[in-house]
Amino acid sequence: MTIAQLEPFHAIAVSGLAHRLAVEGRSIIHMEFGQPSTGAPAAAIAEAHRVLDSDAMGYWESPALKARIAAGYRDSCGVEVDPAQVILTCGASPALVMALSLRFAPGARVAIARPGYVAYRNNLRALFMEPVELPCGHNERYQVTAAALEALEPAPDGVIIASPANPTGTVIPPQELRAIAEVCRRRGIAVISDEIYHGLTYGEPALSMLAVDSQAIVVNSFSKYFSMAGWRLGWLVVPPDLIDQARARMGNLFLTPPSLAQHAGLVAMDCRDELEGHVRSYARNRDLLLAALPGMGLKQIAPPDGAFYIYADIGHLTQDSLQFCTDLLQDTGVATAPGIDFDPVEGHRFIRFSFAVSTPLVEEAIRRMQPWFAARKPLSG
Amino acid sequence: MTIAQLEPFHAIAVSGLAHRLAVEGRSIIHMEFGQPSTGAPAAAIAEAHRVLDSDAMGYWESPALKARIAAGYRDSCGVEVDPAQVILTCGASPALVMALSLRFAPGARVAIARPGYVAYRNNLRALFMEPVELPCGHNERYQVTAAALEALEPAPDGVIIASPANPTGTVIPPQELRAIAEVCRRRGIAVISDEIYHGLTYGEPALSMLAVDSQAIVVNSFSKYFSMAGWRLGWLVVPPDLIDQARARMGNLFLTPPSLAQHAGLVAMDCRDELEGHVRSYARNRDLLLAALPGMGLKQIAPPDGAFYIYADIGHLTQDSLQFCTDLLQDTGVATAPGIDFDPVEGHRFIRFSFAVSTPLVEEAIRRMQPWFAARKPLSG
Repeated sequence: MTIAQLEPFHAIAVSGLAHRLAVEGRSIIHMEFGQPSTGAPAAAIAEAHRVLDSDAMGYWESPALKARIAAGYRDSCGVEVDPAQVILTCGASPALVMALSLRFAPGARVAIARPGYVAYRNNLRALFMEPVELPCGHNERYQVTAAALEALEPAPDGVIIASPANPTGTVIPPQELRAIAEVCRRRGIAVISDEIYHGLTYGEPALSMLAVDSQAIVVNSFSKYFSMAGWRLGWLVVPPDLIDQARARMGNLFLTPPSLAQHAGLVAMDCRDELEGHVRSYARNRDLLLAALPGMGLKQIAPPDGAFYIYADIGHLTQDSLQFCTDLLQDTGVATAPGIDFDPVEGHRFIRFSFAVSTPLVEEAIRRMQPWFAARKPLSG
Repeated sequence: MTIAQLEPFHAIAVSGLAHRLAVEGRSIIHMEFGQPSTGAPAAAIAEAHRVLDSDAMGYWESPALKARIAAGYRDSCGVEVDPAQVILTCGASPALVMALSLRFAPGARVAIARPGYVAYRNNLRALFMEPVELPCGHNERYQVTAAALEALEPAPDGVIIASPANPTGTVIPPQELRAIAEVCRRRGIAVISDEIYHGLTYGEPALSMLAVDSQAIVVNSFSKYFSMAGWRLGWLVVPPDLIDQARARMGNLFLTPPSLAQHAGLVAMDCRDELEGHVRSYARNRDLLLAALPGMGLKQIAPPDGAFYIYADIGHLTQDSLQFCTDLLQDTGVATAPGIDFDPVEGHRFIRFSFAVSTPLVEEAIRRMQPWFAARKPLSG
């Protein structure tokens, strides 16, 4: 075998240009990355101040945080999780690496939605596993379906479920999630469920995969709902029979998550009022964009049930989403992510807006984009 | 292929017992883990307080920290490193995972010293690579040698160098490091150099592999010399041709290191006075143990040139180092690491003391251990 070759994030190039323009004095609105512009909850920051002055912060994992996370599943979906099943990680990214390593060996075929988060494809390749991309368009609500998993021959070794999804924000409804679990059980497909956007929904809450599949490995993090992206704290929930190997992987591959983030994260879990305020702000931003985008000619939009993304079809305007995002940024200062980061086949004609910025900035972005889109000439033919 | 099976750290079991005994009211001296008992430098903590109140801490990597780390190589060993060659990570553990993934594919044979840090063996296995253990005893100063790499047939694909080493603290002298680089160049062996204990030496400073092999990948961290273990910040230095793939791995497998740790780490790099104070304290602890251990019958000790470990032969007292460490802890409250964590073949007759605790605690540990060792009966035969 040869060394694994991974693809870059193109949004990083857009962001790099955005930062260069900002240095030149341009006003930039950052809608290219999926991160809250708010910081951690105030009480979490206060706890961090306290710990900074009272703890030498060696290698550590917080038993209280594991217990609190486990209890959260009982509260949110009635599932009993033993705190030992919770493995604390340095964010969802290494949690995903651990999940893949716990379930699959090189050569394993793992189904993922296309479009989807680029790290699914890349991390599978980094571990010499084979991403099996399920093309998911408007008819499938851009999501893996039970029917698609049923039809796949031969059955894949696993599937990564993401609901709400990145880049689309679509949520898999509970009955479909149950159908997916049933197909996976029957066909022997191991399920990894990326639940990093749980808590960020604008209709019904997203159901944890744990509620329908006790053998699923769940990935989650403090980066999105808890607004603590740069603190690097995430977790896995693994079935009881995988606890020992999960702990061994954590100890060897990553050691421990940041101590301060664990202290602050435990406090953040009880800051629901502040955090729900962020969700209300995202909901306003989403409403503003959904009201404005059709008038700008962006009429085909994935149903943004959750997360803080709008994934819009721009195929009438371009066949080169990276160039399109670059032009939009150069001309208006609005930074966005090109669809090619999420879909190597159809992504040339999609754009992702992250609305995890303040409402005034969303309003300003719309003001800037409206005349710009109005001046774009549709592609002929 | 089947799922990778990793071994546990047995020191974690010892530590777990230590914490249970502490809850029962016992006085415990923690010499089982390799972590400073001191916290981050005062100025680094002050910087963390400042950033907590002024930055929302999104995903971020610090250009200033990369530049500062790169400049450090020019200052310490006259090597020019481009800041782009520096990849910031969530500690040395994920840096090692990235280094292995950048250089090797499943099936690759990678030489490591035995005894050695358990994560080398385990991470190679997790990535389906093959650890080729080089038995390193007192005659080899417990280190990989150029001669051993020369003699290995067929030549391995790579080697992990660790100087100062864990568990022994031995340093590879500059002329031997050059000889190793020369053999590796000639035989096409890719070098990964774990330099996490650099800065912690009690004779000559350890030379960076970069000074003798520009193609080496170097792993380092803020966990040891900089006394910031729980902050989870490390780095890689990669050759220029690997920068793009290293960045792609970081972005997908791990995303970014903790923002606060990067701010604090930059400040910590200019806190030499405080940090050198820790080194002087370790030097005193080392002297105390080296003076006391022979009188306790521990006469065969790996030359502790650096790090904060003493690796001692206890073969005259036991053939079961885990039981020995458990007994020592139960009877005296002194927690240590069993050799089996570092050497599956000979480790049953070794013990590792970490002296990264305060000098009064080392004195107290010696006071408690002296009568205990005096009462141990040598194994017959």
